[in-house]
Parts: sequence; C-alpha cells; structure tokens
Amino acid sequence: MSEKKPYLRIATEEAFCPAELFDVYRKILADGTLDDPGFMSQWGYFLNSNSERSVFVRDALCSLGEDRISNMDKAGIDQAILALTSPGVQCMERSQAVEFAEMANDYLVNGIKAYPDRYFGLTAIAPQDPDHAAKEIERGHKLGLKGVIVNSHTLNEYMDDEKFDPIFAAAERLNTPIYMHPGTPSKDMVRPMMSRGLDGSIYGFSVETAVHLLRIVVSGVLDRFPKLKFVAGHCGEAIPFWLYRLDHMHAAMIKAKRYATVQPLERKLSDYIRDNFWITTSGMPWPPAIEFCQRVLGMDRVLYAMDYPYQYVLEEVGFTEQVDISPEDMKKLFQTNAENVFNLV
Amino acid sequence: MSEKKPYLRIATEEAFCPAELFDVYRKILADGTLDDPGFMSQWGYFLNSNSERSVFVRDALCSLGEDRISNMDKAGIDQAILALTSPGVQCMERSQAVEFAEMANDYLVNGIKAYPDRYFGLTAIAPQDPDHAAKEIERGHKLGLKGVIVNSHTLNEYMDDEKFDPIFAAAERLNTPIYMHPGTPSKDMVRPMMSRGLDGSIYGFSVETAVHLLRIVVSGVLDRFPKLKFVAGHCGEAIPFWLYRLDHMHAAMIKAKRYATVQPLERKLSDYIRDNFWITTSGMPWPPAIEFCQRVLGMDRVLYAMDYPYQYVLEEVGFTEQVDISPEDMKKLFQTNAENVFNLV
Repeated sequence: MSEKKPYLRIATEEAFCPAELFDVYRKILADGTLDDPGFMSQWGYFLNSNSERSVFVRDALCSLGEDRISNMDKAGIDQAILALTSPGVQCMERSQAVEFAEMANDYLVNGIKAYPDRYFGLTAIAPQDPDHAAKEIERGHKLGLKGVIVNSHTLNEYMDDEKFDPIFAAAERLNTPIYMHPGTPSKDMVRPMMSRGLDGSIYGFSVETAVHLLRIVVSGVLDRFPKLKFVAGHCGEAIPFWLYRLDHMHAAMIKAKRYATVQPLERKLSDYIRDNFWITTSGMPWPPAIEFCQRVLGMDRVLYAMDYPYQYVLEEVGFTEQVDISPEDMKKLFQTNAENVFNLV
Repeated sequence: MSEKKPYLRIATEEAFCPAELFDVYRKILADGTLDDPGFMSQWGYFLNSNSERSVFVRDALCSLGEDRISNMDKAGIDQAILALTSPGVQCMERSQAVEFAEMANDYLVNGIKAYPDRYFGLTAIAPQDPDHAAKEIERGHKLGLKGVIVNSHTLNEYMDDEKFDPIFAAAERLNTPIYMHPGTPSKDMVRPMMSRGLDGSIYGFSVETAVHLLRIVVSGVLDRFPKLKFVAGHCGEAIPFWLYRLDHMHAAMIKAKRYATVQPLERKLSDYIRDNFWITTSGMPWPPAIEFCQRVLGMDRVLYAMDYPYQYVLEEVGFTEQVDISPEDMKKLFQTNAENVFNLV
C-alpha cells in the first residue's frame, strides 16, 4: 500500500456490475444475433476464459463489499467513482436496456449507502430510449449519483445524431458530467483491429471513444449545449495529442466545404476540448503522457483513475505519483479536480 | 523565409506524382468498382474540388521543377525526401501497379538528377506483387533512392500477412527504411469516421497507419526481420503516446492466451518501437507533441518533415524550431537523424 498523502486519492473510472449483467451477456453470446463482433469477442473472453485476469475481473466487478474496499485500501485509494461496466445496457434491446439501467442504478445507490465515505457513482442510461435516459439522469441525480456513464456506441449508433439531444440537455441542465467510457469499436470499424487482437484496451478502445467524441464535437453538439461537460479516460484517448492537427485540418475542411456533414462551428475544435472536457489517467499510470496532457489541457483538467478491476496493479498509484508537479497540483490530480467536475463536495 | 541556421533543414515526408497518376485515379473514380470508400472520397475531393487547397495540391504534386524549389526556399527547406503521393499505386490492379511504380521511380530519379543537392527520393512499390516489389526496392536502391514508401493498406490488405515478407527481406538486406505513410482507412474501418469527415488527415489517417504498424509488430514481422527500419509520420501516428498501455495490455493478452493471432514476441512492443522505428513531425509543427516524442523515444528518433504540398504553411518551420532543445539536438531533429536513417551522406 502506498503511504498516506496530504490529499485524498479519488479513483474516477472504476467499474462494477450486478451479477445479473453476466446472465444477460451470456444469453446475448448464446443467441448470436447481436451485430457487434467486438462485444462478442470481448465478453466471450471475459465470461468464458479461465485466465487469472478474467476470473479476477468477473469476481471483482460483482463486489461492492469488503473485497473491493480491501483492494482499494491495498492500493491506497480513498474513494472510488463507480460506473456500470462497459458496454452496460448498450448492447441490449430497448425495453430490456431501460429496465436494466434502472435496476443497476438502484443497486449502485444501495451499494454506496453501505460505504458513503468511500463510494460515489455514475448513472447508467439506455441511449436506445433518449427520453427515458434523460429522465433516468434526473432520477440518478436526485438519488445522489454524480454524473452519467456512456460506454461509447449503442448498437453501433453514435450520439452525434440529434435524436440523442434529450440526454445532453438533461446533463447540461443538471450540470452533471458525461463520462464517455470506451467500448469495443462498432461493427463497421472493428475488423482490421480484431484480427490481430487490437480491438480492446490495447488500442481499439481509444479509436472507438475518440471517434465518438470527435463526431460529437464536429457535429456541433457543444454549440447546442455549450455548458455540457465530458470526461474521457485513458489520458483523453489520445485526443490531446492531436489538438494542433485537429484545428488545422478542421479549418481546412471547412474552408474547402468538403463534407456536407462538417459545418462551421463557433469555436476551434481544441477550444471545445479545453473548455468542455476533463480527462482521467485510467490505465495510463505513465508520467510522460500525464504530464503532456497537463501541459496542453491545464492542471485543472486531468484527474486520477485506476480502471479497477481491469487494471488493478498495486504499484500504479506510485507510478502516477512520480509525475513531476507541485504538491498543489498533485492534490488537483488526485482529489480536487474530481471533486470539482463531479460536484462531490 | 526562416533565417539561415547552423544545420540543414531536411524535410522527410514530401509528396509528388507524375501527372499520369491523376489520369489513373480519374478512371478509378469514374469506373466506381474499387472497394475503397476512403479512396473514393479523398481523391474525388482532391481531383474535383476547386477549393484553393485542392488546386494548390494538384499543381504542386506534379512539379519537381522550379516551383517546388522556390516553395522550399520560401519555407527555408534545404532538402526534401520525395515520395509518390498516397496511395500511390496501391489502389491499382497488379499489372498496372507494377508498371506504374517502375515508371514513377524512373520519373523521380530523373527529377532528382536536375537538383541533386536539393532532392532525395523513396522507392514506390506495388505490394500487390511482393516479389516484384522486392526487386523494385533493389532497383531503386541501385538508382540512389534512399528508402521505400508504403501508403498503408493495399486494396484493403495489411502487410502482417507473410506473403509480404519478400518486401521486408529486401528492405532489411539493403538497410533501407520503409516509410509507412498514411492512406485513408481500409473499407472495414472507414465508415464511422467518414460520415463526420474524420477519415482523412484530421484523424483517420493516424488510425489506419497505427493499426497497420501495430499489426506488423504484433504479428512478429520484427522477430523475423529484426534489423528492419520503419519511419512513421505525424509524430508516429500517436503510437508513442500509447507505449505504456501497449506493453501492459499486450502482456495481459499473451498471458491470457486470448487470441490465436497474438503470440509471444521476443521483445516488448515498446522495444520494437524504440529500436526499429523513427518518427517524423509531418503535419505536427507543435512543440508539445514533438518534445513528448523526443522524451519517450529519444533525441535520435525524431525527424523533421513538412508534408508538402498537403500542409504548406510557411510559418510551420518556425513553429517547429520553438521546441525547447539544445542546438545539438535541433541539428539532429532537422538534419542528422534524417541523414542517419536514410543513409543520405
């Protein structure tokens, strides 16, 4: 366990699920009709493999009790922001997704009640039904949940479609952030990655999530909802690396009027990233990347995350604490940035 | 023009084509049977748009004469390494591709003869015919060309297939680098990007190229050809950003035996990137990203490039020269790293 520090360590991208989620996923896998090869590969692996990693992930996801608290203690994590594991209900048909999201949120709220000084949570939604999702965001907010979890595409659809606007309207109105968590790449993007094992957390997750977020930005969602707050994990899925090129090439596309689907925006792409996005260090306990993100987005925009139980490595908190920043900025990274964006205090 | 400096400015990812390439592309566009939506969109735009950018690109690609030299002078570029523009012959059927590659290489060698102190060149190949491509690498090398240009996928195929090994064998034997240049994403990856204009240089190019390079590394090409040298543009297509995560997740995949197509390798993924890759700053005249890459790959691994004529902005040399490095390292960035990896002197 890392030594006690003059700040809370709040881990902001931590996964859980009710065990019933596995039953639903097993039925989807057995049924074989879901048109989502990434899901079939990922959950076929996690539910059927006897590897040490998948056994641990299965067990750990289903615990909100002493096992999880003990593992947080061992790693030096004071508080965790919990979210329904990816892809949550987003691979289910509409009515099942709506029902499961409500159940999972109630389950999470109950779990938090047992450890109110250790856990926070995000509201799971079914984007399959945007109006219900908007209501569920409101219900979750009233129950004390601190943001919204979206696990990228929903049945291969992206949220730049205006039909999803009720979701953004609700999140903006309540000043509650949307955590855009990875899922496996959608069906029209996954195959060249999957055939060499690149579809998951090693690389494909970042492509899927960055494409989704960039589609949202390019389509003008943030002109319609200028106060909306997005959180992206894995050091922002490398979007910070591309800020210069995004601006340059977006301006060139607009000037050339190349795409009917790419129209002028009120701000530069990098302005939306800097103004409306916060990023977390989930899965990236690597000072060079963290310091790069702090440099280009600012110290107030980078939050610590572990990605439990997918990346539970005790040493990683210590790796992250090797970033070369002041004690004040270290407190921002581990505590106050999370408190601010998720309105924890 | 930037002021004269105590080093040569060598631009290492500069594009050209014989005008006949446009005739072939126009026929492909009119024919409509090429199963490559990214190509159809990109070259439909560049060949048919009257935007200032596409008119300039069309004219500038076809000049190896005084126009190009004058534009290099204006930007302060001393020497350019020229390569057949993307996707070169890789969208053509085999026999036409083989013939066009030979013609383009002869055309380039002739162009270099007119300005031997300003130009170097790379050998274009037709991966459609790996044995011919290997011979063409040898012929280009004898003619004084300094490396090989590959514009990512060839008719939607990636070079991790062992049938392409003759190409890698030839490049390794001659100690001549392969520049893996972007193309638009292959047909099974492009659609979610294209529908919001993200398929090209703004983002999709990096996904296509990184997927291709990671497939090559994961498949063990660099265990079979351990001295092979790859060059990747656009600050390494963000691969340097992912070094930690690539290692962590690759090790996890190997341990869990998740994919039959992902077998143990002799080195860590990041070792291959650090040992066998050089990256260039094409399109990324942005000190934060350049300095990040120098930090994680080392000062000897990052080379200057402009990406003429696609990104001809006079101020960009000056932007790049704002990197916070010593004069010795600045000379590496602009001159000696290029001289070393391409064997220019």
